Amino acid sequence: MTMYDILLKKREGGTLSKEEIGCFVKGCTDGSIPDYQISAFLMAVFFKGLSREETFLLTEAMMHSGDVVDLSSIAGVKVDKHSTGGVGDKTTLIAGPLAAACGVPVAKMSGRGLGFTGGTVDKMESIPGMRTSLEADEFIALVNRVKLAVIGQTGHIAPADKKLYALRDVTATVDNLSLIAASVMSKKLASGSDAFVLDVKCGSGAFMETVEDAKALGELMVEIGAANGKKTIALVTNMDRPLGRGVGNSIEVMEVIDTLKGAGPADITELSLQLASYMIYAGGLAASPEAGYAAAQRALRGGAGLAKLRELIAGQGGNPAVTDDFSLFPRAALSVSVCADADGCVGGIAARDIGVASRRSGAGRETKDDVIDLSAGVILHKTVGDAVKAGDTLAVVRGNDAEKLHDAAAVAKAAFRIGPERTAPAPLIYAVIA
Amino acid sequence: MTMYDILLKKREGGTLSKEEIGCFVKGCTDGSIPDYQISAFLMAVFFKGLSREETFLLTEAMMHSGDVVDLSSIAGVKVDKHSTGGVGDKTTLIAGPLAAACGVPVAKMSGRGLGFTGGTVDKMESIPGMRTSLEADEFIALVNRVKLAVIGQTGHIAPADKKLYALRDVTATVDNLSLIAASVMSKKLASGSDAFVLDVKCGSGAFMETVEDAKALGELMVEIGAANGKKTIALVTNMDRPLGRGVGNSIEVMEVIDTLKGAGPADITELSLQLASYMIYAGGLAASPEAGYAAAQRALRGGAGLAKLRELIAGQGGNPAVTDDFSLFPRAALSVSVCADADGCVGGIAARDIGVASRRSGAGRETKDDVIDLSAGVILHKTVGDAVKAGDTLAVVRGNDAEKLHDAAAVAKAAFRIGPERTAPAPLIYAVIA
Repeated sequence: MTMYDILLKKREGGTLSKEEIGCFVKGCTDGSIPDYQISAFLMAVFFKGLSREETFLLTEAMMHSGDVVDLSSIAGVKVDKHSTGGVGDKTTLIAGPLAAACGVPVAKMSGRGLGFTGGTVDKMESIPGMRTSLEADEFIALVNRVKLAVIGQTGHIAPADKKLYALRDVTATVDNLSLIAASVMSKKLASGSDAFVLDVKCGSGAFMETVEDAKALGELMVEIGAANGKKTIALVTNMDRPLGRGVGNSIEVMEVIDTLKGAGPADITELSLQLASYMIYAGGLAASPEAGYAAAQRALRGGAGLAKLRELIAGQGGNPAVTDDFSLFPRAALSVSVCADADGCVGGIAARDIGVASRRSGAGRETKDDVIDLSAGVILHKTVGDAVKAGDTLAVVRGNDAEKLHDAAAVAKAAFRIGPERTAPAPLIYAVIA
Repeated sequence: MTMYDILLKKREGGTLSKEEIGCFVKGCTDGSIPDYQISAFLMAVFFKGLSREETFLLTEAMMHSGDVVDLSSIAGVKVDKHSTGGVGDKTTLIAGPLAAACGVPVAKMSGRGLGFTGGTVDKMESIPGMRTSLEADEFIALVNRVKLAVIGQTGHIAPADKKLYALRDVTATVDNLSLIAASVMSKKLASGSDAFVLDVKCGSGAFMETVEDAKALGELMVEIGAANGKKTIALVTNMDRPLGRGVGNSIEVMEVIDTLKGAGPADITELSLQLASYMIYAGGLAASPEAGYAAAQRALRGGAGLAKLRELIAGQGGNPAVTDDFSLFPRAALSVSVCADADGCVGGIAARDIGVASRRSGAGRETKDDVIDLSAGVILHKTVGDAVKAGDTLAVVRGNDAEKLHDAAAVAKAAFRIGPERTAPAPLIYAVIA
């Protein structure tokens, strides 16, 4: 069995065996299969697809390509929440504290932002003093004590995925259901939690542009989770427009705090409550998602969620006073306003463009090694459905580089679609797959 | 314009512009595009194809990726003959001398064998003293004097093809019409002749397994030639069975000599005459292919072809006495006979298997750096349509390594399909495309 044979078999539409998939993943991990064969294989998969069974096998092989984290010393049903990546999506830092406040142990390993999407680890690092890299025992102790810790992904989780993702990213083979599902689920399964709540983003600002594709991805990931004995629930949610009003690291954390104080935007508040409700339900701490929702709502209204965020911050070395004093966050020296040219109504705000604008302001990375500006980003002053008059501020772009901000403002402006009529807002959640 | 954009455009079935194809070929040539992007692109081309126009542009860009040979100091219309690769195909060394004997200047750059197919340069090197690497001025002087020279491909012809071919070979992207046509024609156009006679092999021993595919390839290459102002004729010929009786380097040259003496197998004799007739016609030295055929036949019967082969051998430092004394060729120390198990009739001889048997006997290469045994190969004693009795010798495998010969004999034996009934022989030439 050679990689050539495997490649040719897939090119011809054949179904790969467990041995063939194992051989492929092993060769990706140990470097024995050259990149050019891996990328040709990925393109063949793009055109010929993988069966459910092949996808399960690929996920398992990728999961076992590195360490599988042992969280058994954390009491209770550990629940992880994962998003396929969006713009302005700070729900982990709201739903996580709400679920933890209801008793769900959340031992989360999270990523950094790349391209037009942000990452929770970057956002957390905008809190002064916050450490996102903890030793395993410190991480576990923190979850046992606080019920919540959020750290960057450790080195040896699913190295085959790291290899494959890097190649997919540069060979136009990212947007394949099976490859996305195997990538997400291999990392989730290796990270050791017992249950997963997946937020599958759908729309112009996500990998999956249609509800149909996003549902299919959600179903596939739920099946993979189930096949591995893990309770898995997927929510298919709207990513046609940015979530909330703020995009950018410290900007988003401030919105998190506002939301946990009950003063957040409606969409962020509602999606966070929904995600928390399924986390509480999946963790066995509510008999139904509805009961979970009520519990999450109590944690929000009673301030337990905000208190949990403070515990998280303090537990990871950050200054919890940020929740009452936003001046402790890194501050941008410059801001540029984006104004409406004419009267009308905001018909849409292209999430991807706002993500790009945020990245250009300095908040994101073009390549993995870029240094980001934690104070930079975009604040939306108008959202979908709002009436505007010529000259109204649509958004403000913040940062520390005038040239970048100018560029970012132009991109942000182009993201707004303003028309004569008020358009009905699209739903926030399209489907729940359990 | 980045390689990623080009790759994505092709993956989505778009039509690439001249600039995009130029950018791709330039990046393949100068090494600025990484292999993994090239191979993903090749796989996308496999699935999405290239239009005629894209294929023309790719061919031209590949042709200009290196040197374009200037043969203008050779008098007359230079005609090149090319085969897409077969088993036992020694027609270059027969049709070349016949056409040259009729006055056609043949300045041929040829390849070495790889995999199950042989190469003319290797075959020539089985003639003692023969040099296959000549300086440009020596090569040109020889063609002007003798009308015929055959050398190995010089270093800097179509380097983009070299790069692409090496990657296609290991990523299961060889068998695509456009990529094959561009590969063949870029090298032909860069090698400087004025007209081309192409032998497109078709059948189980060729890249193109069906007559339909082979015709399509021939048509495409003829169009590419015409688009570049070069008279191009393609013959679609049978490669279901090996050509002639001998496969292997010195074994094939002995058959060449026999054929030029009028004592060759019928198929080799006829195909060589046909190829020569189109070379003579394409070179403007006959008013019709029929007139060219008559001229080639005269050169064969009158011995002018054999005399031309002797001149070629002498001109490149070889010993022309080989044409009268086969003992001057390298001799194999060992031979193994392959015998029939039962009575019947030979219904087929799988060309590819005989090619593999020849390679295993030592006559061919598995990788470019393998050293070959010029004496080794397979001699068919029975051919398609022959009646056989149990115990009859079907073939003899020659070489110098007992273990290899044993292996080769088993492969050769499996190549023979022997059945109860005599099957009608398939045609030798399926189509001529001009």
